[in-house]
Amino acid sequence: MAQKPSIPKGTRDFLPADVARRSYVINTIRTHFERYGFLPIETPSMEKSVSLMGKYGEEGDRLMFHVLNSGEKIKKADVAALSESKLGRFTQSISEKALRYDLTVPFARFVAQHQHELSFPFKRYQVQSVWRADRPQRGRFQEFTQCDADVVGAVSPVLEAECIQLFDSVFHSLHLKGATIRINHRNILSGIATYLGPPDRILDFTVALDKLDKIGAAGVFDELKQRGFGEDALTKLTPLLELSGSIVDQLDILESLLKDQPMAIEGIAHLRDVLRFVSPLHVSNLAFDLTLARGLNYYTGIIFEVAPPKTVDLGSIGAGGRYDDLTALFGLKEMHGLGISFGLDRLCMVLEELDLYPSTLQQAVDVIVLHFGDAYVQDLIPHIAKWRNSGLRVLVYPTSHKLKKQMQFANQSNAPWALFYGEEEQKEGILTVKNMGTGETDKINLDVFDTSILTT
Amino acid sequence: MAQKPSIPKGTRDFLPADVARRSYVINTIRTHFERYGFLPIETPSMEKSVSLMGKYGEEGDRLMFHVLNSGEKIKKADVAALSESKLGRFTQSISEKALRYDLTVPFARFVAQHQHELSFPFKRYQVQSVWRADRPQRGRFQEFTQCDADVVGAVSPVLEAECIQLFDSVFHSLHLKGATIRINHRNILSGIATYLGPPDRILDFTVALDKLDKIGAAGVFDELKQRGFGEDALTKLTPLLELSGSIVDQLDILESLLKDQPMAIEGIAHLRDVLRFVSPLHVSNLAFDLTLARGLNYYTGIIFEVAPPKTVDLGSIGAGGRYDDLTALFGLKEMHGLGISFGLDRLCMVLEELDLYPSTLQQAVDVIVLHFGDAYVQDLIPHIAKWRNSGLRVLVYPTSHKLKKQMQFANQSNAPWALFYGEEEQKEGILTVKNMGTGETDKINLDVFDTSILTT
Repeated sequence: MAQKPSIPKGTRDFLPADVARRSYVINTIRTHFERYGFLPIETPSMEKSVSLMGKYGEEGDRLMFHVLNSGEKIKKADVAALSESKLGRFTQSISEKALRYDLTVPFARFVAQHQHELSFPFKRYQVQSVWRADRPQRGRFQEFTQCDADVVGAVSPVLEAECIQLFDSVFHSLHLKGATIRINHRNILSGIATYLGPPDRILDFTVALDKLDKIGAAGVFDELKQRGFGEDALTKLTPLLELSGSIVDQLDILESLLKDQPMAIEGIAHLRDVLRFVSPLHVSNLAFDLTLARGLNYYTGIIFEVAPPKTVDLGSIGAGGRYDDLTALFGLKEMHGLGISFGLDRLCMVLEELDLYPSTLQQAVDVIVLHFGDAYVQDLIPHIAKWRNSGLRVLVYPTSHKLKKQMQFANQSNAPWALFYGEEEQKEGILTVKNMGTGETDKINLDVFDTSILTT
Repeated sequence: MAQKPSIPKGTRDFLPADVARRSYVINTIRTHFERYGFLPIETPSMEKSVSLMGKYGEEGDRLMFHVLNSGEKIKKADVAALSESKLGRFTQSISEKALRYDLTVPFARFVAQHQHELSFPFKRYQVQSVWRADRPQRGRFQEFTQCDADVVGAVSPVLEAECIQLFDSVFHSLHLKGATIRINHRNILSGIATYLGPPDRILDFTVALDKLDKIGAAGVFDELKQRGFGEDALTKLTPLLELSGSIVDQLDILESLLKDQPMAIEGIAHLRDVLRFVSPLHVSNLAFDLTLARGLNYYTGIIFEVAPPKTVDLGSIGAGGRYDDLTALFGLKEMHGLGISFGLDRLCMVLEELDLYPSTLQQAVDVIVLHFGDAYVQDLIPHIAKWRNSGLRVLVYPTSHKLKKQMQFANQSNAPWALFYGEEEQKEGILTVKNMGTGETDKINLDVFDTSILTT
């Protein structure tokens, strides 16, 4: 019986128009990655489970897609674990591989594995799918594409500055205005946490602070109180949440408030170093954001996050930061890393909403050839081959349907030009050339026909 | 404890040089697909198991990678089925999704699902990974890339001719000489099977015939005898295996031998039709191959297979054929289809063995910038931004390592040019430009430096 065709929830088919738009964005990002000296790598879709499990916290382990062992191997299913509801152990007994959850951990594994084949500092980019068994919602899919650029094996504020510049260059090329590149530094957060209360409370502090946007200062205060911070801490925090002025101004204020916190001072100094390299570039919409506290389980220095323009209601479209020692998980120590990532799917949604795709993306074909049937096509075969060799995308209508039907198809194809070859044309050795935009037609001798006239 | 980094068997990491080569081949194929009017689509890596299972025969079902259901859902594991060794039923109880096994069945599902969003005839191409739990060996991987072009919704020998031409154009662009495009027709095979023996024995016949290369005519005869064909059949088969001359000559001989087999005559006529459109194109290495009998479970007309040049010991690098009614599996009837596929991984191996990759692929960076440290980089920042905007791929050495170390890195990077900016350069406002190929250096005023001199 025929099945009603459908795909798993949270996954998508991409029609030609979708692929054209996604390719446009990917190619733009890729071009800029290459201009900044990043080299492409690719890793397998499936990694060994041991390489991924435990690297993304509890949530990551839970949202990982596991691939069942093949053949007889599943006979080893640990039924006892299942009956005790030890699902992790049960999964382990029937699955040794999992789908890539992000591009960073596979990259760390790659660097450790291939360390003797690479020259350091190593700048790599990677554009591949990742999979997460997350509840699907707007802008969140179970299969989506990440575009990552990372450099490992070097520490220099020049690299951080290049990350900021790279975000800016890509958005500029995509004509996307108003995306905000937010930066912060882990050491500033550490310094503030120490300044406010007992040591080692940075996570409690940042979890509360992260909600400032949603619940306001009063809400953050409430939450901090519940997490055991005293009144005194809240008094100290108030001026920190009221920073204003340029980034340099804000860092000045912060420095005077946190002058006794060496961690914070170090973080501030590092951001100043980075800004020295960014300032000649007039990057628009760069912002210091004290509440930015993402990925604290592995970021160790600067933290990036890019928000879409305010008119678009969507989460971050880019992120990144400095992480030291991620490759140590795979036995390679003291390998400093820094990276940024573009979320392709959300970026595409932003461009769509703001109507920023070039109209030329709709043209997947340059010329469509209409005719009276096979005998006519046969005359054209060597000519069509020549046109294609010159780079033209030529769609030959394959059958001898009524001309009306062929014209309808030509219209839907968005081809800017149609070439018609029928009885009269065959007799006279000509082509009728139609500009599909203006509707104008012209008759041209087939043997001298030059495709360079087909401009749009 | 640190893990020794490794990846699942049958999968691969691609280093920058590998990606450059693969991208070169993919881009070449993609360019030609587009010149022939094919439009890109993409489908999810995971399909519902019901969409894939049973579509590829028993072997396909066995080699499919199944994705475990997430979270609590695996509690529904059918333990009884497991204890009865009903592994299929057990798998079904804990997995609803499987990784794409090829691009054809997902395409059929796609066409049925999106039929009202497409205009027919619909020409699509698709370049994506597929996964098979096959025993890894030379040229066979568990994750590999297919490059498919198919047209659905039309029947015309022009389309078959375009498939042949497309194979030829791609190989020509890749400078690959000596690949043989072999063609056959299912109806010719059916006609011969009927001519030789009892009806409905086409599969027995083709299974034996397919081994001609390996076991010779005598071997094929033995095997046919075992499968119940009489002496008489073998006598009839002998002249069929001895066809020689041009394709048209061979079809002539075949026609006279099979004149009483209407199916065969129809297949021969169809191939002649196709050849009419191919012959003006001087396609090299097109061959009629009576033993070609691939994909008989779904091919209904012409069958293609491409063998690499004889000097390379590797299986087919391309394949395809006409299939009618594949979309009927998903409820869409009478949708004729025709398609070809390039096996990217094997094609890359062939180019590698024959040393056919352009040497420019080794240059992933155009210019490398060497310097005495951050303070020097700062002067260059606006200039580097300008060079990158002009399209140049510029790698800035990120730290102030000793110049010797930087030069060593520059050599390994394969960049054709190095720009050096140190104390003297800063004082005089110049750049030292080094041609890494010839070793020549030049000093150029930084403000008038024009990147167009950096040609290779």
